[in-house]
Amino acid sequence: MTSWTLADRAAKMNSSAIREILKLTDRPGIISMAGGLPSPKSFPLDEFTKACQTVMLRDGATALQYSTTEGFADLRQAVADFLPWDVSPDQVLITSGSQQALDLIAKVFLDRGSRVLVEKPTYLGALQAFTPFEPVPVGVDSDDEGMLIEDFAAQVGTGADKARLAYVLPNFQNPTGRTMSDARRQALVDKARELNIPLVEDNPYGDLWYEGEPPLPLAARNPEGVIYMGSFSKVLAPGLRLGFVVAPKSVFGKLTQAKQAADLHTPSFNQRVVAEVIKDGFLDRHVPTIRALYKAQRDAMLAALEREMAGLDVQWTRPVGGMFLWVSLPQGMDAQQLLTAAVERGMAFVPGAPFYAQEPQTNTLRLSYVTVSPAQIEQGIAALAAAIKAHTP
Amino acid sequence: MTSWTLADRAAKMNSSAIREILKLTDRPGIISMAGGLPSPKSFPLDEFTKACQTVMLRDGATALQYSTTEGFADLRQAVADFLPWDVSPDQVLITSGSQQALDLIAKVFLDRGSRVLVEKPTYLGALQAFTPFEPVPVGVDSDDEGMLIEDFAAQVGTGADKARLAYVLPNFQNPTGRTMSDARRQALVDKARELNIPLVEDNPYGDLWYEGEPPLPLAARNPEGVIYMGSFSKVLAPGLRLGFVVAPKSVFGKLTQAKQAADLHTPSFNQRVVAEVIKDGFLDRHVPTIRALYKAQRDAMLAALEREMAGLDVQWTRPVGGMFLWVSLPQGMDAQQLLTAAVERGMAFVPGAPFYAQEPQTNTLRLSYVTVSPAQIEQGIAALAAAIKAHTP
Repeated sequence: MTSWTLADRAAKMNSSAIREILKLTDRPGIISMAGGLPSPKSFPLDEFTKACQTVMLRDGATALQYSTTEGFADLRQAVADFLPWDVSPDQVLITSGSQQALDLIAKVFLDRGSRVLVEKPTYLGALQAFTPFEPVPVGVDSDDEGMLIEDFAAQVGTGADKARLAYVLPNFQNPTGRTMSDARRQALVDKARELNIPLVEDNPYGDLWYEGEPPLPLAARNPEGVIYMGSFSKVLAPGLRLGFVVAPKSVFGKLTQAKQAADLHTPSFNQRVVAEVIKDGFLDRHVPTIRALYKAQRDAMLAALEREMAGLDVQWTRPVGGMFLWVSLPQGMDAQQLLTAAVERGMAFVPGAPFYAQEPQTNTLRLSYVTVSPAQIEQGIAALAAAIKAHTP
Repeated sequence: MTSWTLADRAAKMNSSAIREILKLTDRPGIISMAGGLPSPKSFPLDEFTKACQTVMLRDGATALQYSTTEGFADLRQAVADFLPWDVSPDQVLITSGSQQALDLIAKVFLDRGSRVLVEKPTYLGALQAFTPFEPVPVGVDSDDEGMLIEDFAAQVGTGADKARLAYVLPNFQNPTGRTMSDARRQALVDKARELNIPLVEDNPYGDLWYEGEPPLPLAARNPEGVIYMGSFSKVLAPGLRLGFVVAPKSVFGKLTQAKQAADLHTPSFNQRVVAEVIKDGFLDRHVPTIRALYKAQRDAMLAALEREMAGLDVQWTRPVGGMFLWVSLPQGMDAQQLLTAAVERGMAFVPGAPFYAQEPQTNTLRLSYVTVSPAQIEQGIAALAAAIKAHTP
């Protein structure tokens, strides 16, 4: 019997709490507000089918061959073109989804014990991507507009313990749905520059706004001090696994080397198909249809919460875009325990605890409104309210 | 100006020597035997085009959605079915090319300073994938049949310094083209079991045999002690980035967690397209055509070497499959210097030094015969011989 000795880091690695919950809750009859899946109604199936055909007939042999690590030139150019600040295609690295960007950033910047600042709460998948590199993620106190500048400065650390970077998700954050205000963005960028802390800005949901475009990205305010991450998963389709990083020239080379060691390059075929789909302004026509779809569902969820939670000591965020909102239960109520009661009543959510780097607030939970119809939303939120009432002493 | 502090590992990371050479040598008029690209003639374009169509029309919404980390069930089953030992689909993890499998294995098993045994020489991309995890790769003396068992045992190390694993490429090795004999395979498996050293068996070329099937894989001889890696890059097309790992149940979960943190999952669409292409025994009909193509080119290269190197102190391997052969130049002749002279004469190769974990044999080089026609092979090998003659004092 061979015994396998694992790396130290392997003991710290875990399966995503969300994916484990999905296994329990993705069954017929359950109204799931747990997942983070985009609605399949938003996938442009006809355009993809046509683009696959075009790419295969026109560039088949190239699309099926190995290609450069940095990515397909036309797609890098398209990304540079649609971003709202001056970006050179040479700074764009195409990644296998934006999850891979998190892995590469961690690989290049985080040693064992490196301090990394995150929001309270933060995106669970980022914590999961960082974990194998054994950093110390430190939560920064955050309000409805994101990180509080004073606590950001207080948590930065000094000397060898100074934070390597701060990871933030300014638009319609996962999990809370909150958006950083223009003033807070500028204050964070200014403070980060003053304290010499690189920022990592994750923006998978930025195009899914419902009441006007969000303020300028952090990267647009200080391109040399910010690594920006974007994704095609929420505006086209996640199953192709296409994301990108925009990085300052000083660190672009190292990220590319890390990418090459990790998987050589993102599938050439997928890059060409997406470049084909989005040319001629397709996203400008397509994304508004996703916004309209999700906005109606967000409205339904906010209305249902207003109605069903009346009289209960429950708060929730009012996202102006994205896919999620965040619920705070009465103090002392444990969302993990509540989940069992909710599933019994036919609905599922994700408990909030795994989204905290430390000191989880266990009375929080995340709801997604994108894969459920308005009718399901009404029924699901009523079930949630019933579960909360049953749990209230 | 923000200054970015890199992780210690980042200083050790480098761009692939091959990819750097390709940038210099991939220009019109150069006959390149440097690349490791499969011949685009071997890509089944019609079948892919049809499969894209079928998958999009039948399963479009699912193929474009997020999916499970482990991989598409039908593809995992297909892999389990075509391997020549008893494999459960539960042990098959679909990866983003087999390069990613190397990254995941390193992430799960290698700490900073961990000893890992490799062949002399070994696959450069494996060294590159391991590097970010800062192990100490140790070359094991190898002959035409692979690792020498005596040196394997001598290099294993003891206590905390005991090797975490040994990485081997038994079939038509990259870079040497050599194949482990049946006896050597059994001896290595037996010795590894005796010394309790896990083996990692990389088999991207195994189906490309020209004179009969190679001996049984190492994993078939001791499934609990071997992680097996395979790829669709050489038998279908590399641009889809599809590989797989077969791992013992005891470590499968950790590899899956590492995969999830790295990129969530391999593109659902690509997995479904390949599953569609290979169902109904397509590979059984297709792979023989690749074998015939490459065999003719290998024969042309062996004949050209025989003719052009007559009278020179030059040796080369005689691969019975795969894509590469390995040339030893006269003692003291530096292949890196020879490359300049060869490019001037219109051909390119990869110098052998980067394929060694330590103590490189600088008088070696790798030739690929798969993307060059027999006529180009004759001309290229004549140019190589001329360069060698010009370099001989």
